[in-house]
Order: sequence, then C-alpha cells, then structure tokens
Amino acid sequence: MVNQVPRGDGSWQSCKSDSSGASNSGGESSKESSRCSTPVLDADRSDRLRDKMRRRTESGDRWFSLEFFPPRTASGAVNLISRFDRMGSGGPLFIDITWHPAGDPGSDKETSSMMIASTAVNYCGLESILHLTCCNQTNVKITGHLTKAKHLGLKNIMALRGGYPTGHPEAESYEEDLRRLKEKVDAGADFVITQLFFRADTFLKFLDDCRAIGITCPILPGIFPIQGYQSLRQLVKLSKLEVPEEITSVIEPIKDNDAAIRNYGIQQAVEMCRVLLDSGMVPGLHFYTLNREVATMEVLRQLGLWIEDPRRPLPWAVSAHPKRKVEDVRPIFWASRPKSYIYRTQDWDDFPNGRWGHSSSPAFGELNDYYLFYLKSKSSKDALLQMWGEELMNEDSVYQVFTCYITGKPNHKGHKVICLPWNDEPLAPETNLLKDELEKVNRRGVLTINSQPNINGKPSTDPVVGWGPAGGYVFQKAYLEFFTSSENVNALLKVLKKYEPRVNYHIVNVHGRNLTNAPDMQPNAVTWGIFPGREIVQPTVVDPDSFMYWKDEAFALWIEQWAKLYEDESPSRMIIKYIHDNYFLVNLVDNDFPLENCLWQVINDMFELLDAPLEPLNDGTVSE
Amino acid sequence: MVNQVPRGDGSWQSCKSDSSGASNSGGESSKESSRCSTPVLDADRSDRLRDKMRRRTESGDRWFSLEFFPPRTASGAVNLISRFDRMGSGGPLFIDITWHPAGDPGSDKETSSMMIASTAVNYCGLESILHLTCCNQTNVKITGHLTKAKHLGLKNIMALRGGYPTGHPEAESYEEDLRRLKEKVDAGADFVITQLFFRADTFLKFLDDCRAIGITCPILPGIFPIQGYQSLRQLVKLSKLEVPEEITSVIEPIKDNDAAIRNYGIQQAVEMCRVLLDSGMVPGLHFYTLNREVATMEVLRQLGLWIEDPRRPLPWAVSAHPKRKVEDVRPIFWASRPKSYIYRTQDWDDFPNGRWGHSSSPAFGELNDYYLFYLKSKSSKDALLQMWGEELMNEDSVYQVFTCYITGKPNHKGHKVICLPWNDEPLAPETNLLKDELEKVNRRGVLTINSQPNINGKPSTDPVVGWGPAGGYVFQKAYLEFFTSSENVNALLKVLKKYEPRVNYHIVNVHGRNLTNAPDMQPNAVTWGIFPGREIVQPTVVDPDSFMYWKDEAFALWIEQWAKLYEDESPSRMIIKYIHDNYFLVNLVDNDFPLENCLWQVINDMFELLDAPLEPLNDGTVSE
Repeated sequence: MVNQVPRGDGSWQSCKSDSSGASNSGGESSKESSRCSTPVLDADRSDRLRDKMRRRTESGDRWFSLEFFPPRTASGAVNLISRFDRMGSGGPLFIDITWHPAGDPGSDKETSSMMIASTAVNYCGLESILHLTCCNQTNVKITGHLTKAKHLGLKNIMALRGGYPTGHPEAESYEEDLRRLKEKVDAGADFVITQLFFRADTFLKFLDDCRAIGITCPILPGIFPIQGYQSLRQLVKLSKLEVPEEITSVIEPIKDNDAAIRNYGIQQAVEMCRVLLDSGMVPGLHFYTLNREVATMEVLRQLGLWIEDPRRPLPWAVSAHPKRKVEDVRPIFWASRPKSYIYRTQDWDDFPNGRWGHSSSPAFGELNDYYLFYLKSKSSKDALLQMWGEELMNEDSVYQVFTCYITGKPNHKGHKVICLPWNDEPLAPETNLLKDELEKVNRRGVLTINSQPNINGKPSTDPVVGWGPAGGYVFQKAYLEFFTSSENVNALLKVLKKYEPRVNYHIVNVHGRNLTNAPDMQPNAVTWGIFPGREIVQPTVVDPDSFMYWKDEAFALWIEQWAKLYEDESPSRMIIKYIHDNYFLVNLVDNDFPLENCLWQVINDMFELLDAPLEPLNDGTVSE
Repeated sequence: MVNQVPRGDGSWQSCKSDSSGASNSGGESSKESSRCSTPVLDADRSDRLRDKMRRRTESGDRWFSLEFFPPRTASGAVNLISRFDRMGSGGPLFIDITWHPAGDPGSDKETSSMMIASTAVNYCGLESILHLTCCNQTNVKITGHLTKAKHLGLKNIMALRGGYPTGHPEAESYEEDLRRLKEKVDAGADFVITQLFFRADTFLKFLDDCRAIGITCPILPGIFPIQGYQSLRQLVKLSKLEVPEEITSVIEPIKDNDAAIRNYGIQQAVEMCRVLLDSGMVPGLHFYTLNREVATMEVLRQLGLWIEDPRRPLPWAVSAHPKRKVEDVRPIFWASRPKSYIYRTQDWDDFPNGRWGHSSSPAFGELNDYYLFYLKSKSSKDALLQMWGEELMNEDSVYQVFTCYITGKPNHKGHKVICLPWNDEPLAPETNLLKDELEKVNRRGVLTINSQPNINGKPSTDPVVGWGPAGGYVFQKAYLEFFTSSENVNALLKVLKKYEPRVNYHIVNVHGRNLTNAPDMQPNAVTWGIFPGREIVQPTVVDPDSFMYWKDEAFALWIEQWAKLYEDESPSRMIIKYIHDNYFLVNLVDNDFPLENCLWQVINDMFELLDAPLEPLNDGTVSE
C-alpha cells in the first residue's frame, strides 16, 4: 500500500520555501446540452474550488488538502501518479503542485510542475492547484504559462510568494508583509495557505492579525509533520525558519532513530492540529507531504479526517477537467485502463462523443498510447519477465500467467503475477466475486481481461459495487471479455446460438473480422443506477463502434508490452506473436441480469463441445 | 368497444369511386443527435412505408391496411378519431384517408381530408396515406396541398385515379388502363392498391396482367365486406361496378335483414381473402371500411390478421410524425391527455425539448388546448351534467364524482361516471391495480387524476405493464397526483418530513406557489426499461419545469370543462371555482421502487394527523 519516494531528492526545498501564498480558482461556464442522461450526481462536479470550500466549511465538515512537489526523474513521476491515486482515496479537498524553477516547470516534460498538475486533474480526477511565481519571469512568459494551464484544465493557481505566519524572512517587517498579503487578497485571491510553522499559537496570532486588517477570506494553516532529522534540518535552512527549543530538545537525542523521529513528528502534528481545529477558526488543514504517504496519512487518520469513502459518484473515477466533468458514460472496455481512455479522448468536445462511432465526430486519439508515459508499467522489465516468464514454451505457458494473475498464487518460479498488459493493478474487489470461475476458464485458454458480475438492484451505498448518491439502487449485466483461439471461437459460436437473444457477443480478430449479434450496432448499457429524484444514470456501456478502437489497443498490448520483452525471433516472442495474430477478442453480455449469470455456462458448453470425441449426431447422442 | 358512425352519410361514395391508385411514400433523413437515450426500439420507427411493407412481406408475415373517408360533421370527426385509436390497436400497417372534393379536402377544417390524415399521423400514431387527385385542380393548388401535407408530417400520398382490376369504367380499354398504371409506377410509385372487386379471380388475373407488362411493385387487393343492401347498391352505382349474380341471388331475398346481409358479407369477404392469401401472390389486404368497425374487424379476426398485441414500443403511443419518431421521453403529467401534449409541443424541433424548462428552448404551446378540437369530450353537456352532478351541494359532492369514476359504480342518480375533465377514457388497466386505495382517498378529498404502481422488473412482455422489445424488464416508481385542500396540504407537508428522501413531492396552487424537495429541479425518471443489447430507456419522467405548464392546464380544466357547465354565479359553479382557487395540485413519487409503495401510507398518515383531536405531544401521545 505504501510506496515511499526515493530519498536523496533534495531539489524540493527551494520550491517548498515558496510554497505558500494565495490562490484563485477560476470559474467555468457549464455547457448547454439537451442530452438525456447528464444528471448532476454531485453538485460539486460543476463548482469552483472556493465554492466547494465554502460549502464544506458552512456544513461544519472539516477537510484537508495535500501538497506535492514535482519529481526529478521519470520513474519518480510514475510513482507520484500512483501516490495521487492512493492518497486521493482519503478524500482531500484538493492537492497542489509546487512550481519548481530548476525543473523547467512550465514545459511538457513528464516531470514538470505543469504536467504533473495536469495529470492529477485529468487522469487522477483530483481538484488541483498549480503553484506559479513571478520571480525571474517576464510578463509574456507568465501569460504563456497561464494560457497553457487553462488549456490543460488547471483552473486554480497558487500565486507565490508570501504567507509566512511569522512574516516572510525577506519582508521589511511583519506588518509590511501582512499589508502585502492584504493587497494580494484584494486583487482577487479566494483563500490563503500559510507556510509551515511549529506552534499552533503562531498561526492563530497570524490569523487574528489578518482579520484585524480586513483579510476575510479563508486562511489555511500549512501543516508539516516532521518525518526525519535530515529533512527537517534541510527544510528550516532553506525556509529560514527556526525550530523551537521544545522540539529540538526532543529530537536531538533520537536523531539517528528514523522511526522514533517520525512517531514524534506524527504525535506533534496531531496535537498541533487538534489545537487548531478546536479553536473553531480553522475549517481545514493543508499538509506538506514531502511526497510521502505514511506520516500525513497517519496524522489524518488520528484526526479522523482520512475517510476512505467507498461511495463513488460513478463506477469509474471522474476526471477533474472542467470540460470532462459532465462526462457520464464510457465504454466498459477501458475499465482497467481509464488513463488510456482519457488520453485517447482528450480532444473531444463532448462526452460521449456523439455515440462514439458517429461518422461526423472526431475519432479516438491515435493508438500510440503504449507510449503514454503515465501508463508505463510500475514494474521493471526484469520484474515483468519474472512474472510473465523468462521463456515461454507454448500457449499453455501464457494460460498459466493469466491463471496466476487471477488466483494471486505464485508461478512455477515462485513469483506472483501482480499485473498483466491489460491490467496494471491487482484484481478489483468486485472481480474477486468471480475468482473461481475465472481461474477455471483461464487455465483452459479463455484469457480473461475484463469482467463484471450481474447485479440486480443493490443499494447504491454497497461498499463493493455501490456508487452514486445514497438511497439509490445499482444494477449490472454480467460481462466477460477474453482472448481465445479460433478453434474455441468456432465452438463458441455454435454454443451461442442456444443463448439467443439472452447473450450479446462481439468477436473480432486483429484484422478486424467482426462477428456480432448486436441489434443495429447499438450500445448495450451494462451498468446503471436508479436514484431518488433523478433520471436514470447509465455510466458503462458495451459500444460496438468503440470496441473496434479498443480492439486495436488490446491486440497491440500483446506485442508492445509482452512480445517485446523477448529477443527478436525468439520462441517466446513468436508464441506471443502467434496469439496476437490468431486469437480472437471476445466480449459477452448476459442481458438477463435478474437471473443467475449464464456466461460461465456458455464457456462450459463450449468446453464440452470441444471435449466431445466427435460432433454430436442429430439425435443428440455422441457416437463412440 | 364498437362505435358505429351514424348512417346516412352518403358523401363517401364519390370519394370511394376514386379510392384506388398508386402511392409514393417519401423518405425523411433521420436527424443527427448525440443524445443519450434514443435507442431505436423498433427499426420500423425510422423506415419508409415501402420498406416496412417489404420487410413484412419478406418475413412471410401477412398484414392489412384500412381505408377511411373524412366525416361530414364535427361530431363525426370526434368519433372517427376514437375509431382510429380502437382500430389502430389491431395492428394495421397503415390507414388511408380519401380525398373528398366536396368537403374542402385540403383546408384546415376539422373534417377535411388533410386534417383527418394529419390527426391520424400526429395524434393517433398511425402510419397514414393521404389520397390526392389532380381532377379539376391547378398545378399551383396541388403543389400547395403537397407542401402542406409534408409540413403536417404526411409522407405518403395516394395518387388517384386508376387501379380498377377490370379496367377503369372511363378507360379506353383494359389494356390502355394497364399501360397508364405502368406509367404511374414507372414515375415512382411504391405500390398499387386496387379498387374493390367481388371475385378473387378478378384480382389474380389483374395481377398476372400487371406482372406481364412489367409492373413489379406490390399490388394490394382492395377488400369490401358487404355491410348492407343500400350501401352496396349506392356503391356499385357510383363506382360503376357490377355485382355478380352469385352475390345478388343471395342478398336480394334477405335485403331487409341487415344482420343477415352483414353476416353474409363477412363470410363472403373471408372466403375471398382466403383464396387471395392462399395464392401466395398477396402479402397484405386493404380494407374499405366505410368508416365502420364491426365487419372489417370480424373478417380480420377470422383471417387471424387482427392481432391486438399488448406489446407497445413505449408506454405511451408514439406519434407517426417523421420529426417525432425519435421522441422517447415525456413528462408523466399528460399520461391521460397525450393529444394535448402533442398539440402543445407540436412546434418543437427536438424531443425532449432541451430538458423542457430550458430557457433557450421554445416553450410549451399556449394553453388554449381546451379548444383543441380532437380533445372535445365525446359526451354531451347533458351527459356530463348527469355524471358530474346537475347541482353540487358542497366539496363533498365533487369527492363523490371522483369516487364514482374510480369505482365504476353509479352515482346517487344512477349514472356511471365514465370520464373526468382530466381523463376522457375509463381507467387504464394498470390503474385498476390501485383501485381500492384510490377509492379510499378520493372519498376523503384526495382527488386523484394520475397514478401508477411501482414495478420492480416485470418482463417487457407483461400484458398489463409491459412495453418495448421482448426479453427486457420494465420498472416503475410509484406515482400519485391529486388535487387537495390547503388544510390537507399543511398536514401532508408535516408527514412528508418523515419520508425524506424516499418520497419526492411537488405541490403547487393555481397561483404558482410551489413547494418541492426535488434536488436541483432535475427530472425524476419514473418509468424505465432494460432490454437486450440496448441502452436504458426512460420514457416517463416527473419533470419539475414542465409540471408548471401542466399545472396551468390541470387547473384550467376545472373551469373550462366543469364549472362552465353551470350558470354564472350558480352555487355549483362557485363550488368548482372555490376548488380551482384554493386547492393544491400535488404529485408524489416513491423512489424506493423495490419496496412496497409507501404513498398510501403517506396519505393515511396525513389523514391520521388531521383526525388527531389535538397536535401530538412531544412524547408521541395524544392528549385527551
């Protein structure tokens, strides 16, 4: 669960010393639409950050936010994005990304402040603030950064510097510093976040002084849980802060014991936060995470602010891009690759884009998404080879890889298979509901890459399958998607005749040969919800047209992510290439959601037909 | 069930003599749309008539069509429209309306050919053909008629004259007549309908001769079931046809026995139709109904072609206007007044019209729909007074009218109440499911005008509540709409607090004072269906914005249809006026569709609160 960023990245401090100031969250007019199923499940989805903050504050609901700095290396970026996904689950009101002048912060580099913030908004669905400073920048450059940020969906800018609760070290005086802050607020800032501090009194006095000179907007305390001796020393040096005697006296004696210092840091932060919250003057807390998870999450847990709410507004994570906030339906195919779907549809003006396959609508983005940086596997090539086999003997070796992924059991070399090219994460909790059946079929070459069980009206608050507002009911049709051999497909097609019209299927090979019984190529809704006082929501569909785009991606992953692990012309690569060239991608929907899922029976019937020594005779018996 | 048109309307024959020829069904390009819930439930909905005919023919599925002539009087028109609704239930492929030169056929009169055909298409949802002849008309006039027809949604024109299977009486020769027919077909006709005939051989020979000279389109036999001695004589005189000896010899002896002649006519028509169908050359039969129901329906029943399919593509009747064919969602409020809804939304370009209340969309048509001719009650003023009371004593007299309507029992003067201003038809079958509860509450002044039970996934083929394609499931939230006094509303509002958020309500009086707990004024879907291979369909919603349009109409009906039956200033009129001015219109939705409907409990709780001698004390007991 916890994944620390590598130590020794000292570059953050120069940013951190600037990481305070005032933020302005820009508005965005909501698009007019006559589309039918855009019920606003969550009023938050269309609100500005300052409005969300006001509503949370008014309701007495305490909240928190998290600050990160851009990573220095590409692998650091991949890790940070994973961290966003994990820390996002605790429910931050927003995150912010520091502006790192040394890291080409406004560039298109994967590690730039701009790109990291854009990824948080677009791909991780987190309300995000991009820091920006005017230091050493021209007017033209700053305008360029702002235009670019807006285009990327970044509506919130933290305008640095300022916000030191004891006065900025370079300020003429504390009073002069406050006067400057008032000017920034008068110029339109929505709220203020302070630099870190070590005593609750420091902040509360600052807050009083701000109110006294007429700063009325929210002022959020910046909380820094001490996480280690060296990092604390480095930070105070760069930010020119002084660590109070009561803290140094505790940590100096234990300075070589990392765990002890961290425990102290957590305890110290929790106590200070309690004083702040108990004052009644502090509606939320802003955390300087140093890109780490453990300490901040522990502080938040002890404060009762870390709430992993299993409720989701939709079954998939909603992007925070202003343009995409109204998005309410996606094809099921990208369920395990949502970032790829967002990437390939980033140029769309409307969601869904006129029934996906509509001739007049812009198509899906080019299939270069195995180059999409943030989809890079978190595992190294060596780790992938250990999981997926240094050397493949035959197709059966591949079946075993899939089976190990499903069961969670180690392969014959003792390595667990924790990801597949189509699934970079362990199985979703609801897939676990299907584990036994999935194991059985994968063993025999029905290589499943996506599935969901049928659900006939579970409460929308169900911790595993629920989504949407409370008081509703969610439904699903059973879905199964897999690669399998053409021999299997031939048997399957015979079997499927028995299941008309209960089961809909789409069967396609890499060349696009497409077999289907879908009526008029219409989308089939496979996940929907019924809620009090709202229209029906159908967030997931099996769409025949977009399946053709997905097909290209799903087949390409065999080559790009698996075959290329092996030498050219090597037997292992040839085996994967053979599967890529000859297998079919199949999806099945059981439309009869109130009955027991029949898709396993379909696969069993297929196996039985294949196992029969000869074709069944007309009278139904099998000849010996 | 059966409602004969008054006899003595001799005007039809002159039309009838022309009522054959060739038809062209024009195409209509389907509108592009990115709306979410426009699944094509029925491929027929967007097809041209000739394509529907071809598909039915190819599937070996025999069909029929019905011909009507325009009525002479306004009350005849009201009756004919009812007949369209009844005869439409047997499943005609289309109906056609003759061109009646003496009746100002292209005018806007309620009795004109043009208006009757338009009503059939727009308000009865019947695929319709308008007859048109060039006789005695200028080019400009004909172009005007065609332009008007197109605007009204009439895509199909029957171009007269011609089509006599024995040759037109005024034709130079049989051969010359056939050659003319070939010319018309070559000019673009989709199919041919013949004049009536008395022997199957007559038609089959004509068919052979047509095929021989290269007429390849469908040729439909015009079937005329003999319904009476006089009408037969008149018809043959006008159409210059000869009745064969084998028929005259039978009917001359029984010419004064209407029933005997009609029975003979039915038997004769059935036998002839059997020969035609058995020939394998005739895919469908066209009936000259003479605007009567009994004989044609009986012939069709005996042939097995009259199929009252309880399956509906949607819960409400889909309009046949090309522009409205994509319509798939309506507010529930007009459930008993669909013609009024169609009328008030006839100028819309899109359905639904951008979420009904959208500021930029054209509003509902003016509330002058109590003048809408075809909504005129089928009952006379005297009949209405007998049903609703010659003289009202008090509000309770009104409650009794509602109660009698619900129960079907006669009022104290012995008259059954078969309609109310808001319901011109007896209760729908599914409302019967709620009869006992409805009676109870109406007795006490909860004056219900619309309701539906909750349904948790019944098969789409269910004969009472089913709709949409087979293999699906339909759902409903319980709905109840009623007028009630402000005293009741005060108690109701207290009670409703207990039912948050399970029950949504909208409560409004004639002045527009509006109380609601609907979130963000979003529509609430109250009827939806899940079907194999399709998106979710949600054809009925409770829409807060359109409720304000409905409110005006619902209140106006008290005055326009009820109060005005009485003298100005009369006590009876004052009682209705009092209700109009002081009562509230309430709608309630129970969102928890899988549980037992709680709306009756809500009303009971309201009555209990009203019945309590004093307000309940805090401890829950009631003081004596």
